[in-house]
Amino acid sequence: MNGAESLVQTLVAGGVDVCFTNPGTSEMHFVAALDRVARMRCVLGLFEGVVTGAADGYGRMADRPASTLLHLGPGLGNGLANLHNARKAASPIVNIVGEHATYHIRYDAPLTSDIEGIARPVSAWVKTSPDARAVAADGAAAIAVARTPPGQVATLILPADTAWNRAEGIAEVPPVPERVRASAEAVREAARILRSGEPAALLMTGMALRAPALEIAGRIAGRTGARLLAQGSNARIERGAGRVAVERIPYVVDQALAMLKGLRHIILIEAKEPVAFFAYPDKPSLLKPEGCAVHPLCALGDDSFDALSALADELGAKPAAAKFAPRAEIARPSGALTKESVAQAIAALVPENAILVDESITTGRGFFASTLAAAPHDWLQNMGGAIGYGAPVGIGAAIACPDRKVLCLLGDGSAMYTVQALWTEAREGLDVTTVIFANRSYQILKGELANVGAGNPGRRALDMLDIDRPTLDWVSLAKGMGVPASRVETAEALVKALGAAVREKGPRLIEVVL
Amino acid sequence: MNGAESLVQTLVAGGVDVCFTNPGTSEMHFVAALDRVARMRCVLGLFEGVVTGAADGYGRMADRPASTLLHLGPGLGNGLANLHNARKAASPIVNIVGEHATYHIRYDAPLTSDIEGIARPVSAWVKTSPDARAVAADGAAAIAVARTPPGQVATLILPADTAWNRAEGIAEVPPVPERVRASAEAVREAARILRSGEPAALLMTGMALRAPALEIAGRIAGRTGARLLAQGSNARIERGAGRVAVERIPYVVDQALAMLKGLRHIILIEAKEPVAFFAYPDKPSLLKPEGCAVHPLCALGDDSFDALSALADELGAKPAAAKFAPRAEIARPSGALTKESVAQAIAALVPENAILVDESITTGRGFFASTLAAAPHDWLQNMGGAIGYGAPVGIGAAIACPDRKVLCLLGDGSAMYTVQALWTEAREGLDVTTVIFANRSYQILKGELANVGAGNPGRRALDMLDIDRPTLDWVSLAKGMGVPASRVETAEALVKALGAAVREKGPRLIEVVL
Repeated sequence: MNGAESLVQTLVAGGVDVCFTNPGTSEMHFVAALDRVARMRCVLGLFEGVVTGAADGYGRMADRPASTLLHLGPGLGNGLANLHNARKAASPIVNIVGEHATYHIRYDAPLTSDIEGIARPVSAWVKTSPDARAVAADGAAAIAVARTPPGQVATLILPADTAWNRAEGIAEVPPVPERVRASAEAVREAARILRSGEPAALLMTGMALRAPALEIAGRIAGRTGARLLAQGSNARIERGAGRVAVERIPYVVDQALAMLKGLRHIILIEAKEPVAFFAYPDKPSLLKPEGCAVHPLCALGDDSFDALSALADELGAKPAAAKFAPRAEIARPSGALTKESVAQAIAALVPENAILVDESITTGRGFFASTLAAAPHDWLQNMGGAIGYGAPVGIGAAIACPDRKVLCLLGDGSAMYTVQALWTEAREGLDVTTVIFANRSYQILKGELANVGAGNPGRRALDMLDIDRPTLDWVSLAKGMGVPASRVETAEALVKALGAAVREKGPRLIEVVL
Repeated sequence: MNGAESLVQTLVAGGVDVCFTNPGTSEMHFVAALDRVARMRCVLGLFEGVVTGAADGYGRMADRPASTLLHLGPGLGNGLANLHNARKAASPIVNIVGEHATYHIRYDAPLTSDIEGIARPVSAWVKTSPDARAVAADGAAAIAVARTPPGQVATLILPADTAWNRAEGIAEVPPVPERVRASAEAVREAARILRSGEPAALLMTGMALRAPALEIAGRIAGRTGARLLAQGSNARIERGAGRVAVERIPYVVDQALAMLKGLRHIILIEAKEPVAFFAYPDKPSLLKPEGCAVHPLCALGDDSFDALSALADELGAKPAAAKFAPRAEIARPSGALTKESVAQAIAALVPENAILVDESITTGRGFFASTLAAAPHDWLQNMGGAIGYGAPVGIGAAIACPDRKVLCLLGDGSAMYTVQALWTEAREGLDVTTVIFANRSYQILKGELANVGAGNPGRRALDMLDIDRPTLDWVSLAKGMGVPASRVETAEALVKALGAAVREKGPRLIEVVL
């Protein structure tokens, strides 16, 4: 057994049995080991941002890490933006990055770079294996780091000779650490605040946005009148009909301030104090109203279900107190394609248990509200703000949950960053429907130009925000990568195309011309 | 004048009047300043790897820096692979990377990351501007670093408030430092070696591969019998009919060893001692034969034209001694598309003064030899080994040299990494012909799998090296981004398509099915 095989075996034994990859010469022994370790599923991406984003999506939906396999510093670099997003999403990922043979690094060959330096800004843990016998134990350590709640990015760098030299078998992965429980004192303090009658909200993210925890939060809200809030972005929310709904803090600062106005207390459950996505002249960075106190009940990765349960017990909040979103029969829209009719079509047609990956940016600001009473589904968002996350995360979600329909809702500008994802969807036959909102501009930036006080843009500035010259033809782009596609220009056509996509399995793309 | 405008004005005054960009909210004041500074040409890319690769190509052909404009850490991350390549190519680049407002960074908003940490592995210089009044001087310092021979990557990070707050005008850029001249002693030593009659070679890169320096090298070769060698990869070689030819050290280690066999001396002119691209079990990292001595005449960025001139004088090497490649009438191939017929078609049709960007990987290994006596042209190669460099570098070259035809020769696997480049070609109407070699596999890796001793690949390993399922349809991909395209399956069709591409201006793509 060589080092590469000892690593693949260790990964599989440690529960990491999916590898998203774009390999090169230095990773060839890892690739060759795949022939000998049948239980590792390897998924090829044609660009590393697809690979790392897929690992993010897999981690969110499987609640355990996938691995990536990347080619030296530049391969890692290409995957960096989606690793940034994954880090902010607290997704568990084990990156394997090939490196030159240990003795070759000093010669500064073309691909030589500071891989550890590139990895550090996106990784909780970085290590270069010193020799083949260390690789299995280093792999086990990487898995342990990745699985540590709330989930972390671990990057293991594998010099080629540590892959091809003789190793000594696999290493055991330590068990996943228990999540930390909230202190009785923090629970009592939260209960005291909620009983005070002063306007209060629970601000939740992480595991607190899964259905079981939300149900407990719903009891607390019913008992005390507390509002249930989620951050602007969340890795995964279980929502829709039959679930306890949360309000989301809007992206637009003035809207966020209006929403939080009047609150005297925000109790943080895995969440952070709400902050603006960007700074703007003369607007605050912190969104809570003046005089509002912030009380941490439990930190990200702590046992929020337990904390909410303890709080509900302390408050005597009974199951009957929880209010669930009703199932609404949503009419299918007709007429022109507008933000409203698009939102309505999605709400009407989202299938039971679907996974919605939301990178719809300006077009989709109404989607959250419109789908409140749609069929129950998971809602995945961009946690790091690096666009191009949506299609790759959809791939990972589809591989983690092959029996669930994935809907990727993507702005056209965003989707171009990782457009190569379509090819992997076709190759793997993934049950992913990609909806492209073709407004043919970086629409959000037109608003931001005003928000930051940069004045009225002239032609040259607008040229940097419009992407309509030439027009992107998404049907052709999809065809070029083997994904069947259609273009819709009316609400009826969107309803028809989405209906077909929901009924049939397999990848497809719908270009929604706005 | 705000900080952003003071920077744009400083860039233009310092000779940096092209900006390749993919901006976001934190860069909006820079974008708005474009309306007020007419001399800055701004070119939009839909992915940051296009932006940074274009800056690399521009720097190689213009011999002065362009700037980039990138959106925080993830935008820089997306551009990292091509910045790695640019760093290895010693291309001058001024990166401008937006950052959150200084007071907002502490709140760890979604896009907050360690931008300096991401920048450092690819940058000779990294600085975060502390306030608006410092921005102009920091910009001038960045230009000075970028222009320092041989050319460097400088990264200036611009917090949003340093862009929007009031500044105090522009800053002056120091003159470009003189290139270092070779010492008289090094010249005499090189002359002594060349006179010795022992087998010797000049190994050259950088400015030594431009036509004037090569002509001097040709005199020395004619006078002394020394061989003229270039590295395996070079940022730019001026070559073809009427130029002094160099041999290039092959990528394949055994071929490189065979080529260098028998040499007793290698004189380094801006070049480094030859090393293997990758390490392989039981093959050397250093390529020179045993007993061969290496003598540095001048380092990368030194004045190699002066060093060669001094050496020629010392040796009494006269202009008549130089041998120039003859102009050959190259027959147009017919029949099947093979590596040989493709090479012949390119050699026959490359137009006078064209810029060939070579990322043809396995398909193109014969192109260099076949074009020895083709019309004179520039040959650009990947210096950092991060694939996906070709199309972006072609954009930069086309913008630096609008009167020259750019031919991008790309493997299909490579071209996918930065496929978004086609859109920028269409938008800017660039005179770029993209030739895609569609062998539908990471062909090089099939050889590498054997070279690294990983054995005979099975189906699962081969699955990671084949990209034929589904087949990429390059005509559709090009159409999707507004570039006219055709597919050719015979040598005659290739000749016809290339002929049309050479005659007419503007972007087009030819998919060569192998």
